[in-house]
Amino acid sequence: MCNRQWVFVRNPEGPVTEDVFVWREAALPQLEQGQILVRNRMLSLDPANRAWMRGPTYREQVLPGDVMHGFTISEVVESTVQAFRPGDVVETMGGWQDYAVLPAASLSKRDAAVPFEHLVGIYSITGLTAYFGLFEIGGVKPGETVLVSAAAGAVGSVVGQLVRAAGARAVGIAGGPDKCAWLINELGFDAAIDYKTGDVASVIRAACPEGVDVYFDNVGGQILDSALRAMNLNGRIVCCGAVAGYDISGEPFRTQLLPNILVGKRLRMEGFIVLDHLDQREKAEKDLRGWIEDGSLQPIT
Amino acid sequence: MCNRQWVFVRNPEGPVTEDVFVWREAALPQLEQGQILVRNRMLSLDPANRAWMRGPTYREQVLPGDVMHGFTISEVVESTVQAFRPGDVVETMGGWQDYAVLPAASLSKRDAAVPFEHLVGIYSITGLTAYFGLFEIGGVKPGETVLVSAAAGAVGSVVGQLVRAAGARAVGIAGGPDKCAWLINELGFDAAIDYKTGDVASVIRAACPEGVDVYFDNVGGQILDSALRAMNLNGRIVCCGAVAGYDISGEPFRTQLLPNILVGKRLRMEGFIVLDHLDQREKAEKDLRGWIEDGSLQPIT
Repeated sequence: MCNRQWVFVRNPEGPVTEDVFVWREAALPQLEQGQILVRNRMLSLDPANRAWMRGPTYREQVLPGDVMHGFTISEVVESTVQAFRPGDVVETMGGWQDYAVLPAASLSKRDAAVPFEHLVGIYSITGLTAYFGLFEIGGVKPGETVLVSAAAGAVGSVVGQLVRAAGARAVGIAGGPDKCAWLINELGFDAAIDYKTGDVASVIRAACPEGVDVYFDNVGGQILDSALRAMNLNGRIVCCGAVAGYDISGEPFRTQLLPNILVGKRLRMEGFIVLDHLDQREKAEKDLRGWIEDGSLQPIT
Repeated sequence: MCNRQWVFVRNPEGPVTEDVFVWREAALPQLEQGQILVRNRMLSLDPANRAWMRGPTYREQVLPGDVMHGFTISEVVESTVQAFRPGDVVETMGGWQDYAVLPAASLSKRDAAVPFEHLVGIYSITGLTAYFGLFEIGGVKPGETVLVSAAAGAVGSVVGQLVRAAGARAVGIAGGPDKCAWLINELGFDAAIDYKTGDVASVIRAACPEGVDVYFDNVGGQILDSALRAMNLNGRIVCCGAVAGYDISGEPFRTQLLPNILVGKRLRMEGFIVLDHLDQREKAEKDLRGWIEDGSLQPIT
């Protein structure tokens, strides 16, 4: 069997360009005891992948020569351990390749009856990130206003729907009128802001006349700056990611008064990683399943 | 009786200069029912006073024409209500003047047997700010490393001593060798960093070989930037004030990667105001008194 792979070869200075990777066709290694051969069926392409290139984060750095790291939903092809049998569906870090040989301890079995698209999305990194960020870190309460950036993205589109399911008001920020219309018409956001038109700070104020209680931040940069100014007393900023900072060439974060704003409004700004919250995963998946079944949550695939 | 007053007349653009105030000698108004005449005995001159000039914060803005606002320990001279009698010692917002006429509801009675210097300091804004910031917001645990900026200041000097009393390691940042020596020799800090010499980021790393678990931030700006890079996983940044940002002309906050750092290290950055925690004041004062009595806390006067 031939294994098609994207190998990471160069640490990008700015945006990721094609020459950061090389294409390779490799043979599969022989399985050793304790190892499992999986075929990757779904790859989760996340903004965090960019951060992994820059240095060690909450996980090891991606180093030149590595098959590009990536979270996958995979199928067991061959196994040397009793716990996994061919045909089992698992989640793992299968990487950007067709097949991977992995130690059994790095696999978690998943329900094969659930569509792969949902296993890789709503029931995994993106769905759980939205869930834990909004409820554990953001502590959203009914009637509050939640502002979400990158609202048309994989995480943001779930956040907005969960906000509505929690009885709060969802305001999304996205780029362009089509995405904004989609947020309102298809996903039920209460309002949407096109960050490409006009002064974001004043548009946020207009869309959130009662201020912002929770800002779910996927982008950082200037939008975070504007959101901070619209926060209510005792507001929470959920730091989920900061696409604006992943490329070093991006605009610097300019909030001169950041600590003053945090003090004056008693804001809490907190970073989190979904992996820290997996002890609550069972409850999270149950809640998500409930909202999918009653129609209040559309998994985007 | 003649009342000497400093009146706020001009909103400063940058640092506060003398022409922001004018000196006035005024007559005292007649007391109305419910009002009390106090003589100010101690005035708390806090960095926050500067922030009050810039706009409404957690309290009303100081407006041109106002006697400059300030927290005071005062003595009742004349009273129209039963609850306060001449000679009573109270805390209040007496302002930058000899006497103030105030509604009874704005006074709190204090123990007249305690020295005024302690009532205005360790048992009031500065002491309680250090206490609640370190324990409620910072959640310091024994064995952790706590970094404090403006460590030779009114709040910082208490923070470091409380850190030691809590069984944690105190590292202070101050300006100049004399202040640094004072922190170590007189207040028992474990280490001190002179921010005026060399590269603060690398000096922080050297003084905190196991990283920083809690950063008690009194200054914001570049020192916050450097501290963020030294934080440990799950660290807490206590945003107490941000002197570096009070004068608009100060250096901008440049942390381009702030949200990334918060995410990667799962940091919590939280602003607070001592006034929000006064329901716990009794316990706080009891703890502070205990540490003063057993010699582990020196009230600076």
